[in-house]
Amino acid sequence: MKKVAAIIGGGVIGAGWLARFLLNGWDVRVFDPDPEAERKVDEVLLNAKRALPMLYDFALPKEGNLYFCSTIKETVEEALWIQESVPERLDIKQTTLSEIQIYCKKTAVIGSSTSGFMPSQLQENSSFPDQIMVCHPFNPVYLLPLVEVVPGNQTSDEHFGSAKMLLQEVGFFPLHVRKEIDAHIADRFLEAVWREALWLIKDGIATTEEIDNAIRYGFGLRWAQMGLFETYRVAGGEGGMAHFIEQFGPCLKWPWTKLMDVPELTKELIHDIADQSDSQSGKYSIRELERIRDDNLIVILRALKQQNQAAGKIVNSHEEKIINLADIAPKMRTVSRKVPVDWTDYNGHMNEGRYGQVYSDAADGFLWAVGADKAYVASGYSYFTVETSVKFLTETHAGEDIIVDTTVKLIDGKKLKLFHSMQRVEDGCILSTCEQFLLHIDMEKRTSSLPVSPVAENLQNLSRKI
Amino acid sequence: MKKVAAIIGGGVIGAGWLARFLLNGWDVRVFDPDPEAERKVDEVLLNAKRALPMLYDFALPKEGNLYFCSTIKETVEEALWIQESVPERLDIKQTTLSEIQIYCKKTAVIGSSTSGFMPSQLQENSSFPDQIMVCHPFNPVYLLPLVEVVPGNQTSDEHFGSAKMLLQEVGFFPLHVRKEIDAHIADRFLEAVWREALWLIKDGIATTEEIDNAIRYGFGLRWAQMGLFETYRVAGGEGGMAHFIEQFGPCLKWPWTKLMDVPELTKELIHDIADQSDSQSGKYSIRELERIRDDNLIVILRALKQQNQAAGKIVNSHEEKIINLADIAPKMRTVSRKVPVDWTDYNGHMNEGRYGQVYSDAADGFLWAVGADKAYVASGYSYFTVETSVKFLTETHAGEDIIVDTTVKLIDGKKLKLFHSMQRVEDGCILSTCEQFLLHIDMEKRTSSLPVSPVAENLQNLSRKI
Repeated sequence: MKKVAAIIGGGVIGAGWLARFLLNGWDVRVFDPDPEAERKVDEVLLNAKRALPMLYDFALPKEGNLYFCSTIKETVEEALWIQESVPERLDIKQTTLSEIQIYCKKTAVIGSSTSGFMPSQLQENSSFPDQIMVCHPFNPVYLLPLVEVVPGNQTSDEHFGSAKMLLQEVGFFPLHVRKEIDAHIADRFLEAVWREALWLIKDGIATTEEIDNAIRYGFGLRWAQMGLFETYRVAGGEGGMAHFIEQFGPCLKWPWTKLMDVPELTKELIHDIADQSDSQSGKYSIRELERIRDDNLIVILRALKQQNQAAGKIVNSHEEKIINLADIAPKMRTVSRKVPVDWTDYNGHMNEGRYGQVYSDAADGFLWAVGADKAYVASGYSYFTVETSVKFLTETHAGEDIIVDTTVKLIDGKKLKLFHSMQRVEDGCILSTCEQFLLHIDMEKRTSSLPVSPVAENLQNLSRKI
Repeated sequence: MKKVAAIIGGGVIGAGWLARFLLNGWDVRVFDPDPEAERKVDEVLLNAKRALPMLYDFALPKEGNLYFCSTIKETVEEALWIQESVPERLDIKQTTLSEIQIYCKKTAVIGSSTSGFMPSQLQENSSFPDQIMVCHPFNPVYLLPLVEVVPGNQTSDEHFGSAKMLLQEVGFFPLHVRKEIDAHIADRFLEAVWREALWLIKDGIATTEEIDNAIRYGFGLRWAQMGLFETYRVAGGEGGMAHFIEQFGPCLKWPWTKLMDVPELTKELIHDIADQSDSQSGKYSIRELERIRDDNLIVILRALKQQNQAAGKIVNSHEEKIINLADIAPKMRTVSRKVPVDWTDYNGHMNEGRYGQVYSDAADGFLWAVGADKAYVASGYSYFTVETSVKFLTETHAGEDIIVDTTVKLIDGKKLKLFHSMQRVEDGCILSTCEQFLLHIDMEKRTSSLPVSPVAENLQNLSRKI
């Protein structure tokens, strides 16, 4: 018997919840009176089915069944989890919750996606307030882990405990918001930033694009992995958090931002923050935190670089200026680089797959030199690897500088055979070798074909030398 | 002749600038009267030398030479770029700039790292204000691409143009801040968030750790790649940006955040934002933006997953619950997954290195089943791959579901030979095969050794069946 989730309101948020449950093997029943609901849900679900499984290196559980229901009754009756994502008006939410509670099991969790209301407001007039709480997710709900869980005064510990457990079961991080407050935690920050952004645009200081760039090329990258306080803890250095706050305290008196109601920076407040920061991050030295921060930034930037998106695009356009093409010769230096941190596996050394990537790059180094470069690929031709044999001779580690020398073994029409030798720069140790067989490809037909100019001529000249 | 950068002030920020220039092949001359300066600079430089080259898939230019100088004169005389990062007091900055300008070339760019002062304040009393501007970077300066470039009233177009060009040359993204304003752009947001965070802690709503988690598991991931407005453009859906703003407009009148001076949401302001957003992102449909956003989130989350850090840790702990170990048999299903977007290369298909990763995962699937799992590795034993031969039979693409079946070919003491066959689920097409030779390893000695319990027994039983 599959677990059942009931989704009340099938907009972008409701459909995101629906997708999370469904793709984690739950049966899902959804209610939304909008005649367009099924189409809208399907659009979000299509995105989610494509995206969520890509996060994992293992298949997700077998997908559950999805039912579009025409009444709240049939939606919620069997549900273990009921998620309310109706429009952000208190009267609508209260009415909807009342109807849900006529039919649902008393053991079910009822989560509300409200971004602004407090759970006690939702519990007003309810006969069974113990099962109601705020569970506030973030768009896209099928990918982002955060859910703010805010129990009201009357929420029971049992329901709150179930909620945390079930949210984790479908991959969320339930953040317990311990005190009820308008807009919970995250949206208060979003609102503060939004207000500041409106001022900047109104005053003609910056455009939407300039503001986005100011965020995503700078502190946005820090916040994706450490948040505010741990970032500042590292910035404070050996002086620690209290030192950092005292140093930046005066800014609070300056007219930066037009948002001006500011708490007084008392000794007690500084002390509280420093203490909390110690219990959050005190297990690491500042040096260790710097290392963690840098590694996280490297892997995020490298991931965006691979997509040629956002800050990764900046790295790529810088990289283009530092590439040196090898001269055409029977033996060429095709790779020269440092092994990055994301290439290490659980054995503490470079994963075998990354050797494959280095050899793929080595082939590119050769191919670009003979003219099979981006422009050649854009013109409809490329080389595909059809066979490789790799010998792993000794371990390679993150941070080591490596080079690859590539020898041409065979040039014969559409066939190309390369031999790569990977070396550690520091001691000249041969780390690994690879024999690689490639075929020239007509990219439109996706079948093998003879190379064309300038690659054909370059290879012909080269073949005379080998 | 190498280009020369002068670094005035060698704290965390100054040393970060220094590292950027040095690792991009510039000679760097640094002045800091602090007797500890050399040690402090070296610490930052050590981090930078480890981290910055890891961003790239090619070696950076040959490192420049670093000189610690005892006077401003010898630091700046030959410099093309002079970066001032002295303490954040206007009188100190002005005095330092005056001394720099006695000795430096008139063609040099003088950038100030000030986070709060406006360039016109720095230019007061200067005889050559044309070369002075704010160039405000973000920590860690050697990794984050953003520099806010703020010219003052008297900054010349020539110097401003040089600044942008030279910043790009060392990998920065120069963001032109078109109007002088206290704290430029990014720090206004940081200050707004900081003020809100102080309220939340003062009022006992959340701890530093809860605030960090509210950021890094939610909107921090969005801001690392899209920023504020493009994210909201996607959230607004087909209704577009104006619709989104009108919908969320009422929040401005609610007491969310204690930071209460709020601009009026006039038709003009809504119109300006919608227009700017169109010119920023209008080339993409909402569907395309959703796809870009999701792909970016997937690769960031996967990068953090590989590090087992931040949101990646959440994904890993969820993944542990969905792993099904294969039963021990001569042929086992060792991989079952979807090909993620970050595995695609410029040929539009899965890169050969990622086949290697799949076969590494297949070996893990086999090894975990026979007991060579994380606990076994922690106890000091593992298997290392020493040779692979891969045949690439047909193209594989992002989004495809793939499986690998693994057949045991040889179990002989410390030797293990596996044969993997990779299949597309949709049509059963064999995509690739791999022969893989592994050796059992004593992890302390890093040499081959015989397997121990329970792996030895499991393999012995298995060897009877093949």
